Amino acid sequence: MRKLIYMAGPDVFLPNAREIAEKKKSLALLYGFEGLHPFDNELETSQLQPHLAAKKIAEENFKLMRQADAIIANLTPFRGISADVGTAFELGFMIGMNKPAYGYSNASSTYAQRLQALEGPLFMSPDGNLRDTQGMSVENFDLFDNLMLGILALQSTPRLILNSTSEDGIYSCLQGFERTLSFMASDLALY
Amino acid sequence: MRKLIYMAGPDVFLPNAREIAEKKKSLALLYGFEGLHPFDNELETSQLQPHLAAKKIAEENFKLMRQADAIIANLTPFRGISADVGTAFELGFMIGMNKPAYGYSNASSTYAQRLQALEGPLFMSPDGNLRDTQGMSVENFDLFDNLMLGILALQSTPRLILNSTSEDGIYSCLQGFERTLSFMASDLALY
Repeated sequence: MRKLIYMAGPDVFLPNAREIAEKKKSLALLYGFEGLHPFDNELETSQLQPHLAAKKIAEENFKLMRQADAIIANLTPFRGISADVGTAFELGFMIGMNKPAYGYSNASSTYAQRLQALEGPLFMSPDGNLRDTQGMSVENFDLFDNLMLGILALQSTPRLILNSTSEDGIYSCLQGFERTLSFMASDLALY
Repeated sequence: MRKLIYMAGPDVFLPNAREIAEKKKSLALLYGFEGLHPFDNELETSQLQPHLAAKKIAEENFKLMRQADAIIANLTPFRGISADVGTAFELGFMIGMNKPAYGYSNASSTYAQRLQALEGPLFMSPDGNLRDTQGMSVENFDLFDNLMLGILALQSTPRLILNSTSEDGIYSCLQGFERTLSFMASDLALY
C-alpha cells in the first residue's frame, strides 16, 4: 500500500494554490506516495463565523497528520526570515508523534545571514554569543533556520534539501519538493 | 506530585535570558508547577562543531518535552509578524503528543493587522480571499497568528492569553506568562 505523506507549506497561500496542490499530488504519486494536502478537506466554511471556520480547518489538518505516515514540509522563508509558523507547527506535530519528517527550502542562505540582511550587522558579544542590534542572541549553528527545524539537516542522513531558486519562483518552484520526494522514496523504503 | 510544564519562547534569546528563565521557574512554582526550561540542559557545547551542538540541544529539548505534562508557549511575534518558529514547532510537538498546550502573546494585534502594517494595504480578491500586495492569500480569521497556533484561542475554554505590553517589555514582561499560569492551575486540575 502507498505511504501517505502530509504536504505542508506556505504554498497554500499562492494565488494558484490549488493548481500547485494538484501538481504536488501528481509528483508524489510518481514517487510512490499518496500526498495528503490541507485542501483535501473541502470544507464549506464560507458561511461560518471566522473562529469556527478556523477551528474546523485546524482539526481537519490534525486528522490528516494523524493518518499520515510522514511529512514533507516546505520550509522556505515566508513573510520574514523564517519558515511559515503554521508549517513549523505541523513539522513539530509530526515529529512529536515520532513520524518521519522531511523538508526543503527554496532559499539556501542561513538564518543568521537573513537576519543580518534584514536588521543590519550582527556582533559577537563578550560572552561568546552572536547578537543582533537589539542585543538578542542569534543562533550561530550554520543552519537554514531555528535549530528545532534545523534538526532535519542534522540526521545521519540529512532529511532536508536546500534548493536555491530565483526570487520569482520562490513559492511556486517544485524542484526542491521533487528532490525531497526522490530522497524520501529511498529513505522511507527502510522503514 | 507537581505537574511538569515545558516553558517555550523567544525569551531564551534575551540578553538576560537566564534571569528570565529563573523568574519563570519561580512563578511556575508559585502556581504549583515545576517549570522545565531549555536551559535545564547545561550542555557544554562551546567546544563542539556547530551542527553537533545544535543536534544535542534539539535532542535534549525533545527529551524535556516528552517528560513534560503540558506546555506554556510565549507566542509573542519575534523578528517579524509571527511567533518564533522554534516555539511554534514545540507547540506542535506537544499537541502532536496530545498534551495540554497553553500560550500567551505580549501583542494583542491580529496577524492580518501586523501584515498590513509591514507590507501595506491588503485587499479582498474576487474569489473572496483577503490577499497581500503579492497576491498571496491572508488568513482572515480574526486570530493572533496562523490558525495552527490560533487553535489555542479556539478551545471551548480558550488556552491563550493576549496581554498587550509596551514595546520595551515585549519579550521581558512576565505578566502574560503569569496570567496563563493562573489559568493553567485551574484548568490542569481537571485532568
